[in-house]
Amino acid sequence: MNPNLTIDRPTFVTHLECSLTGERYEADRLHGLSRAGRPLLVRYDLAGVQASLSREALTARPTDLWRWRELLPVRRTDDIVSLGEIETPLVPLRRCVDGPDVWVKDEGRLPTGSFKARGLVMAVAMAKELGVTRIAMPTNGNAGAALAAYATRVGIETIVFCPEDTPEVNVREIAMQGARVWRVNGLIDDCGAIVGKGAAEGRWFDFSTLKEPYRIEGKKTMGLELAAQFGWQLPDAIFYPTGGGTGLIGMWKAFDELEALGWIGSKRPRMYAVQASGCAPIVRAFEAGEEHAERWEDAHTVAAGIRVPRAVGDFLILRAVRASGGKAVGVGDPAILKAVDDAARKDGLLLCPEGGATLAAYRDALRTGEVDEEERVVLFNCATGLKYPMPEAPRTLDRHGVIDFDAL
Amino acid sequence: MNPNLTIDRPTFVTHLECSLTGERYEADRLHGLSRAGRPLLVRYDLAGVQASLSREALTARPTDLWRWRELLPVRRTDDIVSLGEIETPLVPLRRCVDGPDVWVKDEGRLPTGSFKARGLVMAVAMAKELGVTRIAMPTNGNAGAALAAYATRVGIETIVFCPEDTPEVNVREIAMQGARVWRVNGLIDDCGAIVGKGAAEGRWFDFSTLKEPYRIEGKKTMGLELAAQFGWQLPDAIFYPTGGGTGLIGMWKAFDELEALGWIGSKRPRMYAVQASGCAPIVRAFEAGEEHAERWEDAHTVAAGIRVPRAVGDFLILRAVRASGGKAVGVGDPAILKAVDDAARKDGLLLCPEGGATLAAYRDALRTGEVDEEERVVLFNCATGLKYPMPEAPRTLDRHGVIDFDAL
Repeated sequence: MNPNLTIDRPTFVTHLECSLTGERYEADRLHGLSRAGRPLLVRYDLAGVQASLSREALTARPTDLWRWRELLPVRRTDDIVSLGEIETPLVPLRRCVDGPDVWVKDEGRLPTGSFKARGLVMAVAMAKELGVTRIAMPTNGNAGAALAAYATRVGIETIVFCPEDTPEVNVREIAMQGARVWRVNGLIDDCGAIVGKGAAEGRWFDFSTLKEPYRIEGKKTMGLELAAQFGWQLPDAIFYPTGGGTGLIGMWKAFDELEALGWIGSKRPRMYAVQASGCAPIVRAFEAGEEHAERWEDAHTVAAGIRVPRAVGDFLILRAVRASGGKAVGVGDPAILKAVDDAARKDGLLLCPEGGATLAAYRDALRTGEVDEEERVVLFNCATGLKYPMPEAPRTLDRHGVIDFDAL
Repeated sequence: MNPNLTIDRPTFVTHLECSLTGERYEADRLHGLSRAGRPLLVRYDLAGVQASLSREALTARPTDLWRWRELLPVRRTDDIVSLGEIETPLVPLRRCVDGPDVWVKDEGRLPTGSFKARGLVMAVAMAKELGVTRIAMPTNGNAGAALAAYATRVGIETIVFCPEDTPEVNVREIAMQGARVWRVNGLIDDCGAIVGKGAAEGRWFDFSTLKEPYRIEGKKTMGLELAAQFGWQLPDAIFYPTGGGTGLIGMWKAFDELEALGWIGSKRPRMYAVQASGCAPIVRAFEAGEEHAERWEDAHTVAAGIRVPRAVGDFLILRAVRASGGKAVGVGDPAILKAVDDAARKDGLLLCPEGGATLAAYRDALRTGEVDEEERVVLFNCATGLKYPMPEAPRTLDRHGVIDFDAL
């Protein structure tokens, strides 16, 4: 039904390179981190892409994630896996903010209800292409669900570890979709240590954030989509909930690739990396002028998706934020919860807490003048709000009794 | 960003008519049921649509629900309300069924996570256009959530009544999105009686299924989309979870309108109205050759969305099913739960129970030869599986202890 999934198209990966040292690695091989222990970035023959694909041809395709095939690493069309990776809508906020031009990019519409689907659909397709049969991953919930769904679909075995306080719905969703899932008495990096140990023993392939190079290629489609949706004029500012930061790094990479193709100019949005005050290693490093971020001890926040004490791509996040003229900003849990409540109650949009964090940060930025009311701003809602706790709504009516209609 | 929401386009509503008697009613007025107590259907100047809009022009528009503007009742562009009504993807089932051509139309990707968004976005836009300020509705959960979200967005007050065993997540979602919500010790038609009483007293406008004429116009976009997605060659069979049946009636209406435009031929899919064995009034009437369905007593099923003992559009459902050469079929709860489990575990797709019912019914139909393996079949998954109970996934791992990696 969707030609993006079935038509052979040329691919242009030339090699991978270490994001820290620039050291070159072969394409079409299984890779983890670089020898320097840093993420690998996929590089393309962008002149080849430019010669092969016009903006007009791209625009004529169905709008799902796989329309970007020439800028993605999957070689064989048969290796494409899909659960329907739609282009996510931009939903304007009208009543809960003042600015006239604020859009929520609602990533909760993707398969398994979160933006994690973008990264995992790509990583699983590449794992299939490269012959991986067993994958393990630490997760705060949504990444594990996306991994489970896509891996199940292609028959790859998965083992998933999540912090013990991960919401029950996430853990059950992962299990329902065919993964083996374990709660661990620790945080996501404690889970990551178990995954790393098993990977070192050759038990499975390690799918931790940025430890394999293809999730970022899937996540960069957020940037590609934004460019297309905004008519190739990027917005003025992007507020992005930042844990591991793959999406922010990916969007920044996407913008560079689009500029190389001549599809956008050199103007970039200011990138705002939004963290919770209770776990803000990137904010601390940003404010201290550091290039790397130290582990955040005693991390706590209602926004579990950005409760990431240490990010292996810390320097890439910080570089992108600084180069863009943006900032790393922290918001408290009360402001997050208030933002979620306002967006639902006033605009009918149920955000996840991490999405609420971007709205809270935007409100702060409006207040301090960091962002102008006239600017075109995108807030990322990274998952459906349905996966998160909501306040009780307890009233019951007795249909056999006398109903006081005035009191309803 | 989306021209479908902002560009003025001609509209073609001529009048409404009683679905039973054909009696004519004026357009652009507030209507409930017809004088005969039956649903009203919106009629269009289809020759006018044909002269104004080509299939090619339609195809060039963004694919969301509002692309169909000329076939929808909303007159003023300013009255459009939107939370991003994307064209829902067709996701193939590969591992949990034998047939090579079975697609799930995943309606869980719509705003508020269900196909109810289609009907309610239209009904709320029309309520806004016609000056309604207060709406009440009975719901099994998803319709109430969609109503709350859209009504909140345009500032219309809403009061929602649901059966007391409605899942907590649904009730909370409705409340979060700004509606006043009450549980009632009864089923959906008991809730409907309260809504009817209040409406008769002039307290609010009654938004019950098919009791206002515009939800069906939103729901018919499922049929319009299918035609476009299948390249204007409709599939051979459609399995549709049937409670009130608005969607089935709506799709049938859509196909007739598309044929009148010359965009499709006279071939129709066989329509299978899928009900749960524990609440199957349409199946009983179908098998008895009746034109109307009596109320089903002691209704019970895990698929609460199709736990509708009495449907005001019963005769319209039965007519469409019969005219199409399809059937009304019942499936038991165990088969429903098994289908949900298989789709998740084998294909990575988390269906709602009502979606599971369509898969279970399709499996039965394959077994009995009612449907051929070679036929192109669409199953409707009407809501995200995330809103429904999932089995427990209880294992915890002590990271401080000795981890037996072989047992993971």
